[in-house]
Amino acid sequence: MYRPTFLVTNDDSINAPGIKLLIEAVRHLGRVVVVSPALPQSGMGHAITLNNPLRLIPSDKFGADIEAYQCSGTPVDCVKLGIFKALNNQRPDIILSGVNHGSNVSTNILYSGTMSAAVEGALQGIPAVGFSFTDHSWESDMSVCVSYIQKIVKMILEKGLFPHTCLNVNIPNLPSDEIKGIKLCRQARAFWEEDFQERKDPMGFLYYWLSGDFLNHDQGENSDYALLKEGYVTIVPVQFDMTCYQALSQMKRWNLDEA
Amino acid sequence: MYRPTFLVTNDDSINAPGIKLLIEAVRHLGRVVVVSPALPQSGMGHAITLNNPLRLIPSDKFGADIEAYQCSGTPVDCVKLGIFKALNNQRPDIILSGVNHGSNVSTNILYSGTMSAAVEGALQGIPAVGFSFTDHSWESDMSVCVSYIQKIVKMILEKGLFPHTCLNVNIPNLPSDEIKGIKLCRQARAFWEEDFQERKDPMGFLYYWLSGDFLNHDQGENSDYALLKEGYVTIVPVQFDMTCYQALSQMKRWNLDEA
Repeated sequence: MYRPTFLVTNDDSINAPGIKLLIEAVRHLGRVVVVSPALPQSGMGHAITLNNPLRLIPSDKFGADIEAYQCSGTPVDCVKLGIFKALNNQRPDIILSGVNHGSNVSTNILYSGTMSAAVEGALQGIPAVGFSFTDHSWESDMSVCVSYIQKIVKMILEKGLFPHTCLNVNIPNLPSDEIKGIKLCRQARAFWEEDFQERKDPMGFLYYWLSGDFLNHDQGENSDYALLKEGYVTIVPVQFDMTCYQALSQMKRWNLDEA
Repeated sequence: MYRPTFLVTNDDSINAPGIKLLIEAVRHLGRVVVVSPALPQSGMGHAITLNNPLRLIPSDKFGADIEAYQCSGTPVDCVKLGIFKALNNQRPDIILSGVNHGSNVSTNILYSGTMSAAVEGALQGIPAVGFSFTDHSWESDMSVCVSYIQKIVKMILEKGLFPHTCLNVNIPNLPSDEIKGIKLCRQARAFWEEDFQERKDPMGFLYYWLSGDFLNHDQGENSDYALLKEGYVTIVPVQFDMTCYQALSQMKRWNLDEA
């Protein structure tokens, strides 16, 4: 029987409980190769490391039968270096990212290292999924995620994904019998409203911590933000053509080639 | 007469010739406030700084009449902290990013700090433009960019941009009379093919430099990759809804709520 290969990464680092849970959820389904950041990479988006060399250090963290590495770079570096080096240029069947400690609905896809690792899979034409859980705490019980991870991974192995896409999966922190089901949905229009915290260091110089609130501006049907809040597991299929075709038509009125 | 405010940033750092050229191109058109990274941030994509505090240091680099700061963070941090602190929560009329040393067509929008600063403008509902020039060298003559920057900025001041979009502008390194004109176009399907360089450090440990070739897979009409190569200035209007609506329809066959 064909044994699929899963490349597993995350953005919370190799020490996060979420990646351990993800590995445990899929290890019986195929070969698991882990390349995960050595240090937390939350908010790193689609960053890649160009100005520094990258390191890949073998790790026995997940037992002798799981090939694992910690990488000095970002989640996208982990995917690229994972394929190039850990997998020796063999393309995995699926790239799995997460489980992130904290939700990644809506425009968080742009900031999230977890999701950017999955988008990198889409760019490379490899099916990929980013999983996120609504609780930030590393102490929270994430076991409710396991059956959803397995269901989605099996579905992808069976049916494949639309070419050059990945999935953004968010799972609510609820008892399993309170989760209402799974919804396919679209990215909500929701945005961060910044509220930097201004502090002084011991020398008297100002510094800032980036913080803020994530606010929903979307009252439309079928948004991931609303459905996750209602208690559904949300799945958004994700692509990477950011062209605004509507603006493209409208801008024809600009007559740009006139003097 | 109304005097617009421009928030100017980039990813090559405050010391790059490209941001100086951009400032010089627009300073007569309004108030210019600069918040630029202290260190190069190429390839940082939409990364934000969550695990470290941010610093904002005033700079007189561009003369007494230009309010400028160097920021310890990423291009997106520069936009956020620029609005919050440098502009004291006043929204600028336009966010200008660049001029990047090196082109940013196609899927480079995801990796590019220059473009991510512009996308952050789109997220915040502020018109924004990222400018990139096809030559990586800091010694190259970028003066051909000036008239295009001015034309596009004046056009935005006059007509506005489609809500929640920004522009990805790429300018070829050609003599001005060899540039064929300006083309509105779409993001090409082109991808990086990695080719990590493996080296040993003086202690004998392996490390890797990320490098590769950017390969076009797009033979369709009106792609930014092809038109830039033909000698046009390319403009792609950019939005941030990454939902794949086509996959969303197709995946309805998944019957996810069955056991």
